[in-house]
Amino acid sequence: MYHHVERDWTLQRVPLLLFPLFPLPFSFDHNLIHKSAIMGYTDLDKLAINTIRVLAVDATSKANSGHPGAPMGMAPVAHVLFNKFMNFNPKNPDWANRDRFVLSNGHGCMLQYALLHLFGYALTIDDLKNFRQIDSITPGHPEAHDTPGIEVTTGPLGQGFSNAVGLAIAQAHSGGVFNKPGFELFNNYTYTFFGDGCAMEGIASEAASMAGHLKLGNLIAIYDDNHISIDGDTKCAFTEDVMKRFEAYGWHTEWVKDGDNDLQAIEDAIRKCQQVKDKPSVIKLTTTIGFGSKLAGTGGVHGNPLKADDAKHVKQLFGFNPEESFAVPQTVYDLYNQHAAEGAAKEQEWNALFQKYQKEFPTEGADLARRLAGKLPEGWEKSLPTYTSADPAVASRKLSEAVLEKIHSVIPELLSGSADLTGSNNTRWKNAVDFQPPDLGIGEWSGRYLRYGVREHAMAAVMNGLAAYGTVIPAGGTFLNFVSYAAGAVRLSALSRVRVIHIATHDSIGLGEDGPTHQPIETLAHFRALPNCMVWRPADGNETSAAYYSALTAKHTPSILALTRQNLPQLENSSIEKAIKGGYVAIENPEAAVTLISTGSEVGICIDAVKTLEAQGIKARVVSVPCFEVFDAQDKEYRLQVLPDGIPVLSVEACSTMGWERYAHEQFGLNRFGASGPYKEVYAKFEFTPEGIAKRAVATIEFYKGFPVRSPINRAFQQIL
Amino acid sequence: MYHHVERDWTLQRVPLLLFPLFPLPFSFDHNLIHKSAIMGYTDLDKLAINTIRVLAVDATSKANSGHPGAPMGMAPVAHVLFNKFMNFNPKNPDWANRDRFVLSNGHGCMLQYALLHLFGYALTIDDLKNFRQIDSITPGHPEAHDTPGIEVTTGPLGQGFSNAVGLAIAQAHSGGVFNKPGFELFNNYTYTFFGDGCAMEGIASEAASMAGHLKLGNLIAIYDDNHISIDGDTKCAFTEDVMKRFEAYGWHTEWVKDGDNDLQAIEDAIRKCQQVKDKPSVIKLTTTIGFGSKLAGTGGVHGNPLKADDAKHVKQLFGFNPEESFAVPQTVYDLYNQHAAEGAAKEQEWNALFQKYQKEFPTEGADLARRLAGKLPEGWEKSLPTYTSADPAVASRKLSEAVLEKIHSVIPELLSGSADLTGSNNTRWKNAVDFQPPDLGIGEWSGRYLRYGVREHAMAAVMNGLAAYGTVIPAGGTFLNFVSYAAGAVRLSALSRVRVIHIATHDSIGLGEDGPTHQPIETLAHFRALPNCMVWRPADGNETSAAYYSALTAKHTPSILALTRQNLPQLENSSIEKAIKGGYVAIENPEAAVTLISTGSEVGICIDAVKTLEAQGIKARVVSVPCFEVFDAQDKEYRLQVLPDGIPVLSVEACSTMGWERYAHEQFGLNRFGASGPYKEVYAKFEFTPEGIAKRAVATIEFYKGFPVRSPINRAFQQIL
Repeated sequence: MYHHVERDWTLQRVPLLLFPLFPLPFSFDHNLIHKSAIMGYTDLDKLAINTIRVLAVDATSKANSGHPGAPMGMAPVAHVLFNKFMNFNPKNPDWANRDRFVLSNGHGCMLQYALLHLFGYALTIDDLKNFRQIDSITPGHPEAHDTPGIEVTTGPLGQGFSNAVGLAIAQAHSGGVFNKPGFELFNNYTYTFFGDGCAMEGIASEAASMAGHLKLGNLIAIYDDNHISIDGDTKCAFTEDVMKRFEAYGWHTEWVKDGDNDLQAIEDAIRKCQQVKDKPSVIKLTTTIGFGSKLAGTGGVHGNPLKADDAKHVKQLFGFNPEESFAVPQTVYDLYNQHAAEGAAKEQEWNALFQKYQKEFPTEGADLARRLAGKLPEGWEKSLPTYTSADPAVASRKLSEAVLEKIHSVIPELLSGSADLTGSNNTRWKNAVDFQPPDLGIGEWSGRYLRYGVREHAMAAVMNGLAAYGTVIPAGGTFLNFVSYAAGAVRLSALSRVRVIHIATHDSIGLGEDGPTHQPIETLAHFRALPNCMVWRPADGNETSAAYYSALTAKHTPSILALTRQNLPQLENSSIEKAIKGGYVAIENPEAAVTLISTGSEVGICIDAVKTLEAQGIKARVVSVPCFEVFDAQDKEYRLQVLPDGIPVLSVEACSTMGWERYAHEQFGLNRFGASGPYKEVYAKFEFTPEGIAKRAVATIEFYKGFPVRSPINRAFQQIL
Repeated sequence: MYHHVERDWTLQRVPLLLFPLFPLPFSFDHNLIHKSAIMGYTDLDKLAINTIRVLAVDATSKANSGHPGAPMGMAPVAHVLFNKFMNFNPKNPDWANRDRFVLSNGHGCMLQYALLHLFGYALTIDDLKNFRQIDSITPGHPEAHDTPGIEVTTGPLGQGFSNAVGLAIAQAHSGGVFNKPGFELFNNYTYTFFGDGCAMEGIASEAASMAGHLKLGNLIAIYDDNHISIDGDTKCAFTEDVMKRFEAYGWHTEWVKDGDNDLQAIEDAIRKCQQVKDKPSVIKLTTTIGFGSKLAGTGGVHGNPLKADDAKHVKQLFGFNPEESFAVPQTVYDLYNQHAAEGAAKEQEWNALFQKYQKEFPTEGADLARRLAGKLPEGWEKSLPTYTSADPAVASRKLSEAVLEKIHSVIPELLSGSADLTGSNNTRWKNAVDFQPPDLGIGEWSGRYLRYGVREHAMAAVMNGLAAYGTVIPAGGTFLNFVSYAAGAVRLSALSRVRVIHIATHDSIGLGEDGPTHQPIETLAHFRALPNCMVWRPADGNETSAAYYSALTAKHTPSILALTRQNLPQLENSSIEKAIKGGYVAIENPEAAVTLISTGSEVGICIDAVKTLEAQGIKARVVSVPCFEVFDAQDKEYRLQVLPDGIPVLSVEACSTMGWERYAHEQFGLNRFGASGPYKEVYAKFEFTPEGIAKRAVATIEFYKGFPVRSPINRAFQQIL
């Protein structure tokens, strides 16, 4: 029976146990700094660390919500890392060569908010007081788009760690592309903190394996080995040897046994990791969660604010006035401001170097300047292939390949890849070079094709990190059905507003023989329901080009391109121009009795169904709506032209009907799992044939006979967006 | 640059290279058996192995689709395992104490189909000829519900491995509960094959870590170390030390260097693993993918049928008539039938033992007999708590806890657990005993509470394995938002029709301060779109009891119970009886101008909105629809009573509106991400208040004034189900 397992106090925790015996006096003079003869660290360092701890206590207490434990435990390493190692300029959080920091255990965000404030980012003490309040820039977990200095959105466990791998890949790649002798434009490190929760998540395992393979020497991860997760002692569920596992992945490992106090050991460990150039590094940092609290070392301090008397106890212990809140000693500001100023100076140096670079290497310089400005190359879209209905039928995964083949040379920041489905996803242009450590002999740092391995979730999270770096646009392939494995990361793409492209092939029962285990049914509905995510399901070549146009120009929105395995005819009335509206009339008929609305592979069948209906004396029109999100963004007048009043609408898509009611009075879809067999037979089994569609179109017309029919575009009220 | 990396031929592959130099003569007499003096294996063993290989070649060739490579590479280990070790009775695939086998690399299913056929399961040679054809029992990946002898549905990588962990847990638990001295009713092993793809997937990492912690000595995994995945040589993406990683998890490891030929080494390794009782075991089996093919050892043989001349080459090499297909030597049938007969005899012995057990231990015997019959205890449902509107407001996560507290003693097969959110999910009844290896001192094998760790995806897949074992019903908790991490496994719960219960708390913006990273928006729509998955979002205590009633009695359907963090009032008109219809009228009013339809925490707000509307002279009715899937299954007459013609319907749910058009003319929801703040403020921000609802109800009434209003229940045609 498991009840309150006793903490396994090992020797390295003795300093903590002793610490409360020698509390700093309440009247401790914050300005009195003694150099520590032994440690090389001064009382000011301790004071800075304790200031972070106390701010975490105050903010969670004021919010009456949040996680004080991790910030209190990790304040020492954060202090050493930020103040001794990291290069950044708080006045310009976008400096391209800044060191990146990712708090993968994002619930400990008061640690990061406190640091950002103390170092002088645009995050005030009032922002700390507004922790976890509506419309603050200090939400419950770090969100990249609103808070200066937050690189990526974290909290869902394992994501940040994997984002960090992406940031490190982007650095290595950018260095590979742009660095020249004497011009090391990109040489930043990526640091990430993670806890037991992240260490248990499969996504982090995938990302760690990938980072080890890629020998990312620029990545240093710090594992908060505090033995506590929400269920209490990790002994109840997590007893593996984490460092041995990382060694198995090919990582360099260090262990700091007293992460609570031994600042010098922390510094030494980080320095050693920096020197290991051909491996990512992880430091196991044994700490005490909630250091200083009466509940230190227990789950009680993980996810709840400290009780009032405990908060006072902490402040007294650390020499703070227990009656004051959000008090920051000026010396701490001064200390951190000095480091911030050094960072600003480094950015100035870098800017000067980059100016010189632009003169010596005008082509590369202009390319980089353009990327950093967030602009695509002038006229790139002219490279998008276009088609006429005379062109042969082609699978949209091949049409996607044709786009990549054409645009990869004009958009050098585009990085493609696949989760071990290169030949099926058609994600690799001819003569692509792999992104690989050069010593493997199978690629280069400057390579633009990533071998993600069978790691869909990590792929999506790594792409979030790649996109966040600022110099590349990632695209990665898997089967649409397995984008679901990556749902957690795709959600964060959308929430954190990054431009990531999922090339999702084998998008329906049309994949045929692989069967129901691989045939998506719910997937389109799932991601269409996700805010700020564009799901494209193009019907032909022009629509595929439009999908890429949209995905590449949407700077703050991820896209999922759902593509077929099977061939699709080129439509008569499609064009990039029409398709980039998200929906358009593919076949018009002013006398139509019904509108068929559809996407992807079913649009062509709908067009055939029009002929079947015609033979029965029924006139029909067809609407192709390759992207709901983009169509919804058009003005109402246009949408009403596409779906006018007076004509009932029947939707046709070979997957769940969920969501189609938004555009169609009646829905024809597949609210069950598919079947294994040759794809044409599978389509026939479920009646996705001209006849099957025509039958339902007739039923729809009959059903609405005698009723006034309003366009589904007309609604009673606006949605909150 | 990565191009056709040369295969790293190491010494252990020499036997393969030599093998084609000594092909069996085409005229080889299948009945001529020589005992091999060196190996202890005979030519008949080789013949059996080659028969499996040739069947895999034939079936994929006939289907012109499928994966011959893995079956050809793994035939030797499959032969040794099935014929030397595994206990099973092909005539009764449901025998409780059979050894379990899971092909985690499910794309290699022709291996398993061939074995099932040869051993005499109800899978004929014609079924093999129908491989990957519509409505066959030999679909593209193994599906548990249709094919005798398939334990779990696999194919999506990493799932089967994780299911195997669940099967092994279920065995350990069942042994812990039922075994008595002299009555070892449950002592079966679980074996699983997995390849590099599974090894790369995070879900398998999570499950392996869990299995190591749990010391599952009854689990033996065989890793097909063939160095090939779809992108070619695994050197391009997967260079970690897999065995070292498993050691880090606490597994015992073995390595068979020549898995193509060395049958004795395979046997020895499996035997050693069986003897390791306190650790799960993994055997690294170095094999040649597509052994015998001209493309052996390359990606070319992974996912495509062999070319015709290569198929002939294989048959000649193995002494088969190259002009014949699906030829099985009678000696092979005889060999396997003999083992099958031994298995049948073992089942008979077991049945006799169980009869004796039922006499000596009538209580336990009756319990087990009931479980094996798939029945719940008589009258268990009387233990479900019921409420009146006088009862206090309680969060539905607490109401769920109250259900567990009441029913755990009457349903002893119920196993609860959480992905490290026990205190938040409220999944643990008082005095629950953890399922743990007894030597850890924190639980027992018979314990009924699982500490899944922060491993949502593995948790869901382990639960699929638990459910498949046949003696337990698993329930596991996480936040609703993180059920998305488990999407791949939940999909397979639904497809493979297993009774698994997801206790998904913190189900909306109502979780408050944790913010948008944790607030589900798309999640309900996602899982409602998944076929054969019940998503329950109860509004109060009676509805929560109904959700459990439904989930526990749905033998072939998984359920997701979406539960609140915040308190909910007990409704006036709710009852278990009403709620188990999936939808019912919570407030009736024959003069209503509008119906408000809602779920969970928003039902109570809708009821308050009725008062707000009343004050404006508008009459409204309220429908609660806690489960779409169950409501859809009611007869039309009932559904039309709930949503009658003539009254416009407004849906209210604090997440994506997607899917609500099915029941409501207008939808009020949240098609954007949420916000971090105290939950009442978040609700107010997005207008989920009586006033916000009333405003939209008025707009809905206005919009439909003068229009004939049809119930959304009336449709033009039936959906294909």
